[in-house]
Amino acid sequence: MSNFSDPVSTFLHIPMQEMERLFDVILQNNGFSPETAQQCAAIFTQNSVDGVYTHGVNRFPRFVKYVQEGYVHPEAKPSLAHKFGAFEQWDGNLGPGPLNAIQATNTAMELAAQHGIGGVGLANTNHWMRGGAFGWQAAKKGFVLLAWTNTIANMPAWGALDARLGNNPFVMGLPYEDEAIVLDMAMSQFSFGAMELAVLKNEKLEVPGGYDSNGQLSNDPEAILSTSRSIPIGFWKGAGFSLLLDILAAVLSGGMGVHELSKTGVEYQVSQVFIAIDLKKFGTNSAITQTIKGIIDDYHASVTVEEGKKITFPGERVMNTRQKNLANGIPVVSKIWEEIKTLA
Amino acid sequence: MSNFSDPVSTFLHIPMQEMERLFDVILQNNGFSPETAQQCAAIFTQNSVDGVYTHGVNRFPRFVKYVQEGYVHPEAKPSLAHKFGAFEQWDGNLGPGPLNAIQATNTAMELAAQHGIGGVGLANTNHWMRGGAFGWQAAKKGFVLLAWTNTIANMPAWGALDARLGNNPFVMGLPYEDEAIVLDMAMSQFSFGAMELAVLKNEKLEVPGGYDSNGQLSNDPEAILSTSRSIPIGFWKGAGFSLLLDILAAVLSGGMGVHELSKTGVEYQVSQVFIAIDLKKFGTNSAITQTIKGIIDDYHASVTVEEGKKITFPGERVMNTRQKNLANGIPVVSKIWEEIKTLA
Repeated sequence: MSNFSDPVSTFLHIPMQEMERLFDVILQNNGFSPETAQQCAAIFTQNSVDGVYTHGVNRFPRFVKYVQEGYVHPEAKPSLAHKFGAFEQWDGNLGPGPLNAIQATNTAMELAAQHGIGGVGLANTNHWMRGGAFGWQAAKKGFVLLAWTNTIANMPAWGALDARLGNNPFVMGLPYEDEAIVLDMAMSQFSFGAMELAVLKNEKLEVPGGYDSNGQLSNDPEAILSTSRSIPIGFWKGAGFSLLLDILAAVLSGGMGVHELSKTGVEYQVSQVFIAIDLKKFGTNSAITQTIKGIIDDYHASVTVEEGKKITFPGERVMNTRQKNLANGIPVVSKIWEEIKTLA
Repeated sequence: MSNFSDPVSTFLHIPMQEMERLFDVILQNNGFSPETAQQCAAIFTQNSVDGVYTHGVNRFPRFVKYVQEGYVHPEAKPSLAHKFGAFEQWDGNLGPGPLNAIQATNTAMELAAQHGIGGVGLANTNHWMRGGAFGWQAAKKGFVLLAWTNTIANMPAWGALDARLGNNPFVMGLPYEDEAIVLDMAMSQFSFGAMELAVLKNEKLEVPGGYDSNGQLSNDPEAILSTSRSIPIGFWKGAGFSLLLDILAAVLSGGMGVHELSKTGVEYQVSQVFIAIDLKKFGTNSAITQTIKGIIDDYHASVTVEEGKKITFPGERVMNTRQKNLANGIPVVSKIWEEIKTLA
């Protein structure tokens, strides 16, 4: 969704510093300490710089609303609940989701540095926004990260009409050369954020993303949002994967499953898992890079359906988007930016 | 694919003991010791009893062929290569894939019993047949298992024509009540085994599984097998997931990636990862069961598209199939059974 051509009339280009400063002011006006406000402002801005607008600038108003309504506690910090050797359970205490996830990723990395592999189950936390951010965080320190979160129910089981599964994003990240390879994948064919963005941009989906009100597969994001019948990736496979991710998130964190956290109709109190592996133990940096480069070079050598089109690995386009947005400003739908300015 | 109605003319029903005895004899005639022959015969038979014919009886002739051609070394045992605390690297020494995977699962469980979480990277091994078997193995002992394998290149990247990705099956298993919940999911919408079985049974696929020779999405398994252009689950998502699983399998095991092991054109020397978590540390059995039951009960309460059709969780139908096959014999395509008898 990141490589659209901006209709100039509806998009603004906001310099990174301007965005971060405005977010910071708004958060400080909403009960955040200067330090926490700065951390959260930086995360929402960086997600936007990296092109993940749905979990950056576009999501910021909802984040502020959840703070104002008491679902996100600005100054709450996670606390250790149980320790089982290389695996720990933490309570997120309803703090800001991205900050809780950063700390859980750091803790998983510390455990992995000690034991080779380490894990954290994080209960009672909030939406982590862009899961890929934690994959990048771990990768830049030389770790593999596997992580996932549950969400509010937003996707039917395979063969079902009503949404009882979360789209439960799953993240895999690892270092590659000076950057990272990071997969950040919701279990629905399209995230609701992506479908909402397509509606804003008046675009159709590239492949069918769910069912319309007539029970037909559709690539119209508005029709799918109206039925809430999004398709799991791989039909029954993604439905099963989503179910297992939810069960493990609840069991390993000691927190809530999708069906419990969906009762209020508001997405908070989610459960997450972070598993880190310390790659530095597995060989020299150059040996590991060489193994990965062999795989990536072969992948890049694919014969493409459209001549001249490059096959990219997950995370590969982020660097380009980042450079472009730093140079030109972050593209923001103007009505979203106007809405954010009213929050200051 | 397991709940088909058997055309009587082409299917035999083989009692479990008869199948296991025949496999045992054939394996002993092909260089297996009595003990190893018995273990492998039991695995291929149990996979068939559980309804996973594609990685049980239907695959047995190819397994024997690979032994005869020297790709699978009947009496080779895995050896420890490196130990990094709770994560170990093992060399499979080209032994029988399912036996190597059983031992790797046991080792991961031992590490998890000690550290809460444990992992094994297994290099230079062979096809594990039914990955779900190891999910069941771990679950029945009270462990969570996450495991995956790479395969020979058999699926194009998203937007590509030539197969450079493996379908790299991914397994998640955990205990539930007296049985297990086990997801066993190849990254292709349909495994090649499933498509081969559909061809044998003259059936179409339920949803599109790949592209035909005209570049059109197709649900004709024969057309897809002829182009080798199978679809990843969730299009670009499953392609990315497959790539990451391959990279991690190679890096964490110290073994080969898909592009290297594909050079011979024969699927052997694969790389695998096994991560176990000891659930017994996470709470009483009844507390964990209650958490899972809450999720499963809600899932089962889904409103179905087809009235009266039950929504099942991954692995739920296995018990029924097992009971049916133990009572009635294992359904085997008669020409496959005839082929196996010629191997004795």
